[in-house]
Amino acid sequence: MNPETFAFTQIGVIRTRFTKQEGTPIQASMAGGEIGTVEVFPEYADGLLDIGGFSHLHLIYAFHEIEAGTLRVKPYLDTVEHGIFATRAPKRPNPVGLSVVRLLAVRGNILEIAGVDMLDGTPLLDIKPYIPSLDARDTDRIGWYAGRLRQEGVVLADGRFDSKEEH
Amino acid sequence: MNPETFAFTQIGVIRTRFTKQEGTPIQASMAGGEIGTVEVFPEYADGLLDIGGFSHLHLIYAFHEIEAGTLRVKPYLDTVEHGIFATRAPKRPNPVGLSVVRLLAVRGNILEIAGVDMLDGTPLLDIKPYIPSLDARDTDRIGWYAGRLRQEGVVLADGRFDSKEEH
Repeated sequence: MNPETFAFTQIGVIRTRFTKQEGTPIQASMAGGEIGTVEVFPEYADGLLDIGGFSHLHLIYAFHEIEAGTLRVKPYLDTVEHGIFATRAPKRPNPVGLSVVRLLAVRGNILEIAGVDMLDGTPLLDIKPYIPSLDARDTDRIGWYAGRLRQEGVVLADGRFDSKEEH
Repeated sequence: MNPETFAFTQIGVIRTRFTKQEGTPIQASMAGGEIGTVEVFPEYADGLLDIGGFSHLHLIYAFHEIEAGTLRVKPYLDTVEHGIFATRAPKRPNPVGLSVVRLLAVRGNILEIAGVDMLDGTPLLDIKPYIPSLDARDTDRIGWYAGRLRQEGVVLADGRFDSKEEH
């Protein structure tokens, strides 16, 4: 079959203090204290009705500073290569990002959020409420991540997926 | 600022027994017994290396049978309208779907999965491993969903977002 292509339009922008990948938390779960904002463009603001009732949101966004993806990567948390779909690395065939953030406040079309792991200026594509009974699962196996995730401490990106540098 | 547009290419197809929205589980968490397959196109199969180590995966896909989105919807689980970003309804400004499924087996470029809530033929855009310490959160508030989610029982779609019918 012929692959289809889908055009998604930016609906807003994510503002954070991170202007380059190096030094940015690699996962939202490791960035609890990092505050940012989501600016939903005014023409989509009506879609935010009742969003203030949720403590956590999924943000779906584009990795806009990443060039076309590769199929194997050496992720931040490991020293060997894995298939890209077995990692959360940004340099993916479709550079789509997914983070769960805490919603602190809603001011019109601006969402104040905590737990940001995105670069400043990241284009927002969608917001979905996070609901544990729909979204959380008990896992049996977490693959190569087992033993590589620390409950404490933040792992920061080192810029290896930064398309502006040579690696 | 001018919104950017991002073109994402289908990397595979999700096969399920559901050929129309009516009767399809509305959430993957309510479809634990529903078996399906993900066929990753051969040119992306190398990206599946080590994916068999994970019990659960995020699938990101296009709601290909949904027409352009609205900003307010009456979702399956409620009788009043909410902003689209406060719901998981498919008729979104960017029709991007997100489900967590259980990985049962990997056979080459085919993933056997359980917990499918997508229509047969759904175009796959990305796969990310699901890792509780990265993806699960304790929530304080789940908005209008509170009291509307049953732990048992499956809610099936009634076709209200089916673009082929008038509603």
